[in-house]
Amino acid sequence: MANTTSTRGYSADKNQLQARLRRIEGQVRGIERMVEDDRYCIDVLTQISAIQAALDKVALGLLDGHARHCMHEGAAEGRAEEMATEMMAAVGRLMKRG
Amino acid sequence: MANTTSTRGYSADKNQLQARLRRIEGQVRGIERMVEDDRYCIDVLTQISAIQAALDKVALGLLDGHARHCMHEGAAEGRAEEMATEMMAAVGRLMKRG
Amino acid sequence: MANTTSTRGYSADKNQLQARLRRIEGQVRGIERMVEDDRYCIDVLTQISAIQAALDKVALGLLDGHARHCMHEGAAEGRAEEMATEMMAAVGRLMKRG
Amino acid sequence: MANTTSTRGYSADKNQLQARLRRIEGQVRGIERMVEDDRYCIDVLTQISAIQAALDKVALGLLDGHARHCMHEGAAEGRAEEMATEMMAAVGRLMKRG
Repeated sequence: MANTTSTRGYSADKNQLQARLRRIEGQVRGIERMVEDDRYCIDVLTQISAIQAALDKVALGLLDGHARHCMHEGAAEGRAEEMATEMMAAVGRLMKRG
Repeated sequence: MANTTSTRGYSADKNQLQARLRRIEGQVRGIERMVEDDRYCIDVLTQISAIQAALDKVALGLLDGHARHCMHEGAAEGRAEEMATEMMAAVGRLMKRG
Repeated sequence: MANTTSTRGYSADKNQLQARLRRIEGQVRGIERMVEDDRYCIDVLTQISAIQAALDKVALGLLDGHARHCMHEGAAEGRAEEMATEMMAAVGRLMKRG
Repeated sequence: MANTTSTRGYSADKNQLQARLRRIEGQVRGIERMVEDDRYCIDVLTQISAIQAALDKVALGLLDGHARHCMHEGAAEGRAEEMATEMMAAVGRLMKRG
């Protein structure tokens, strides 16, 4: 699809994005331990909701960078339509969650 | 809240649940690598949607076990109302994602 | 499926539930007028989000009544499993929105 | 905010959009009747999920028109940043449903 060396919409915030993803990875491991320890179902569900909210924030940040930077570059290359279609498909998947 | 030694609604499927969580943890690490490699934003978003769908499945499985087992036990202990309230709060958080 | 004369989980709050639904119907008509008047897309989207939040509240209220009353009656009739399955399917549809 | 006479992103599909909204209004009235007739909670919930899905489709259509037309015009007027911010806020509300 796209090559992997160009500048991405998230380049400016790459460190922050990576820190968020590592935190989410830690939250998932936390849930694995909760299940290992037979913790109460409702408490596990609360943690899952927290992870979903954190993933939504990451997704919105990526979309924002995409709308500001990639679509701008895409428009300059005459690919505005294609990129709008692509972004809307991504928003649709996020709204339906997969 | 609840002690950690009693039987949980997910006890029967604990191995399967843990396998799913480990897979989700791997998917989050996969996204970290995608960001590290400056992969295209839209491809990262597609992976985030996949993780959210996987977390939703885990959540539904936990809720199902809770409705079938914990609420049954809770009813026997006269805590049906309390547990219904608790479960509805969890469903509300899942619908609003945190 | 179920006959239409028995008591429902929402019976106690039927008036409140109907009032909420009429308000939602009015909100949908409001959006029709906004489109008729060529109002700004983002303002229309804000109203759609408000309707979805209102529908989620109605859905949670119905689920709550179901968990408290119908499932209780269902358990007394030996249909606890069937009703839990049915409720989880409804929660899954609400989480995925249809 | 925005005046009500300019061309909107949904102008081309205005008739289709209005037809969809009228159908959604009819679906809400259908739920009112179901409650009036004491229909089974789970059946009412299924209809609510169907309305949520229909509203999501309308929202995605509006966002799509906005991304293709309004943002394009906005960019020409030097308001690209402002409009991206506005659109991301709308997407965030749709993901969290209000």
